Amino acid sequence: MGIVVQKYGGSSLADADAIKRVARRIAEAKKDGNDVVVAVSAMGDSTDNLLDLAAEVSPLPPARELDMLLTAGERISMALVAMAISDLGYTARSFTGSQAGVITDSVHGKAKIIDVTPGRIRDAIAEGHIVIVAGFQGVSQDTKEITTLGRGGTDTTAVALAAALHADVCEIYTDVDGVFTADPRIVPTARKLDTVTFEEMLELAACGAKVLHLRSVEYARRYDIPIHVRSSFSQLMGTIVSGSINDPRSEDSTVEEPIIAGVAHDRSEAKITVVGVPDKVGEAARIFEALAEAQINLDMIVQNVSAAATNLTDISFTLPRTDATTAMKALEDLRGEIGFDSLLFDDKIGKISLIGAGMRSHPGVSAKFFSALAGAGVNIGMISTSEIRISVVVAETDVDAGVAAAHTAFALDADEVEAVVYGGTGR
Amino acid sequence: MGIVVQKYGGSSLADADAIKRVARRIAEAKKDGNDVVVAVSAMGDSTDNLLDLAAEVSPLPPARELDMLLTAGERISMALVAMAISDLGYTARSFTGSQAGVITDSVHGKAKIIDVTPGRIRDAIAEGHIVIVAGFQGVSQDTKEITTLGRGGTDTTAVALAAALHADVCEIYTDVDGVFTADPRIVPTARKLDTVTFEEMLELAACGAKVLHLRSVEYARRYDIPIHVRSSFSQLMGTIVSGSINDPRSEDSTVEEPIIAGVAHDRSEAKITVVGVPDKVGEAARIFEALAEAQINLDMIVQNVSAAATNLTDISFTLPRTDATTAMKALEDLRGEIGFDSLLFDDKIGKISLIGAGMRSHPGVSAKFFSALAGAGVNIGMISTSEIRISVVVAETDVDAGVAAAHTAFALDADEVEAVVYGGTGR
Repeated sequence: MGIVVQKYGGSSLADADAIKRVARRIAEAKKDGNDVVVAVSAMGDSTDNLLDLAAEVSPLPPARELDMLLTAGERISMALVAMAISDLGYTARSFTGSQAGVITDSVHGKAKIIDVTPGRIRDAIAEGHIVIVAGFQGVSQDTKEITTLGRGGTDTTAVALAAALHADVCEIYTDVDGVFTADPRIVPTARKLDTVTFEEMLELAACGAKVLHLRSVEYARRYDIPIHVRSSFSQLMGTIVSGSINDPRSEDSTVEEPIIAGVAHDRSEAKITVVGVPDKVGEAARIFEALAEAQINLDMIVQNVSAAATNLTDISFTLPRTDATTAMKALEDLRGEIGFDSLLFDDKIGKISLIGAGMRSHPGVSAKFFSALAGAGVNIGMISTSEIRISVVVAETDVDAGVAAAHTAFALDADEVEAVVYGGTGR
Repeated sequence: MGIVVQKYGGSSLADADAIKRVARRIAEAKKDGNDVVVAVSAMGDSTDNLLDLAAEVSPLPPARELDMLLTAGERISMALVAMAISDLGYTARSFTGSQAGVITDSVHGKAKIIDVTPGRIRDAIAEGHIVIVAGFQGVSQDTKEITTLGRGGTDTTAVALAAALHADVCEIYTDVDGVFTADPRIVPTARKLDTVTFEEMLELAACGAKVLHLRSVEYARRYDIPIHVRSSFSQLMGTIVSGSINDPRSEDSTVEEPIIAGVAHDRSEAKITVVGVPDKVGEAARIFEALAEAQINLDMIVQNVSAAATNLTDISFTLPRTDATTAMKALEDLRGEIGFDSLLFDDKIGKISLIGAGMRSHPGVSAKFFSALAGAGVNIGMISTSEIRISVVVAETDVDAGVAAAHTAFALDADEVEAVVYGGTGR
């Protein structure tokens, strides 16, 4: 008995029937004796529809008003979920992010949660109600303005509520059965992971696995809240995200751990190469300062050894495709100052990442990975590594083959197809 | 230059183009040097769409959650209007009812405004912003719950804001050019009224004229806020609602005042007759007590003289059709106690009302009205009167003919068609 926090995304709340199914699921958890707090996203595509409306009205809507607009989406879904629950004979109270005490900074569109003061939630729980909270939104500490947490923010809302309420578990309901060793749409024999550590999940999320939002995993790790990723369409156990790769192994964990937790991929990045940069102290720094000033988050960076004859070098980096135009402009503005030769732009790239705590104790993982890619005829463009991850940039058209080859090379393939995608295209 | 409060209803905000047109109108008022505060309804049919969604999820949704749901509608429209204004180079800030300080009682679905504390609005005005406020909604004083004011509540929001801000005028924008002497869909020669007193407007609104919401007129009269009813689709002057029938006449008002301000009609009522009620003290009172307990608002009441032989009487009354089922049940429950014979129900009725301050000083208005109806072959069922109004109940199919006949008899017909209905079916 304790508090269970659940999160349902838009694909689990697509229409009235879906909402009624979610309500039954929530009522079951209450019937089992738990106090239940639920964070909900906006229904189906409603956030996109609101964005379309905004675009029709203004090409560049003010961020404050965009947040005011978008937060209507969760308001609608939370009220409908509360109604559906009451129709089952339970009582429910819905609360906006502001009413639920989700306090954020003032950055409209991608606010960060500063604090959660769940007084009204606690009161409602004490009165026996099921609590439904609008995900993705909060209220700014200084200006009392409505804010949103950015895409996928409802995962973060759920984890933050679980932390503030000292919940036993945070259940993230989605349209797949859990975290898989690869995207089942690319690798049909992908296996569901029963458990994965916070660090591995962070790397998976950062490398393109869409099942959990990166910030929610960071939040859960900081407050040590176990996340149970599972399907709202089935009763199967999903994946438990908890613990650290640095935890002492338990006594009975004598079986061989798998080396690799999963193969992630990402098609959302682009590559920019600055050609012919003078190889002097501070020139590269100037480039990255300018990109930082333009609020561009870089991912992988490679600098070639300079050619002795010319003393010129090339610098390549990857970044979100959505930031590419801004980045190219910031670099063009520097051309006179630095005197590089040219800029190359490539948005036909993809990234494949191998993630697993086991690779720390297993030498030769890189070699096996590269050889698997070579065997599949996949050419490697850039490489970056962390303690528990190896990422490579390849041609976008080579992503599927590369993921499948790596998955097979590290013996991740299941004997039969495990993965079912229940909803539409996911989140 | 002072503060102008404007109100735009759903038919003026049906889609992105309509919202942009409204934004231009608002910007004009700002450009003219006014501080502008705008109350908006939900876009077009969006409130009905939300009600449909609620009905799909639960046949009897909790009122608290229904208010939470419906208030999303104005949140969407106010944010879009603010965006459209900012696109014109002005700055706008949107506020929910709660943020705007619209404090109500706790009756979900038809809350009454208790107070308006427009601190945030005043701050935004002082910073030079145009202020957009979500109509129809507020926050309850005791429980801090989100409430709605009921259908047409945005008119009341606008007037309440105008009163709290000591605005010069409250402009109610709609899809007709003002208040007409009759519904132009029935009487094409209806004339637009340049002015009408609060009392006459109250009677018109109570008798079925839909152009202004009854409660907003009551509010405006109490705080003496002039209302300018005009079209959002044209630049014409509309109708000014202000002043009292008891005001001393101004010196230059020597011309003959028209006797009748307008002919209103209403098809939303039903008639119930309780047949064979024992004519004893307290029996009728018991009937009306039971109806009051069931929260039924009665309109007209007629009790026949009892037949001497039986000492039984019949009691007829009209009430909103939407309350008819509840009322019939409440009466059936009384049958044993009171011992009446039977209940008759008729929902094929209509009401025609003649309204005008001038009828106080003109005898014979009733006779002329009844004779006009007789001339059009319209049979009168029930009659009720006030100082400035005569209402009759007729067969629903006779409403159009009766309205037209009365309109002509009192010389209200214009020489040419004045009325244009710009939008769809109105509010």
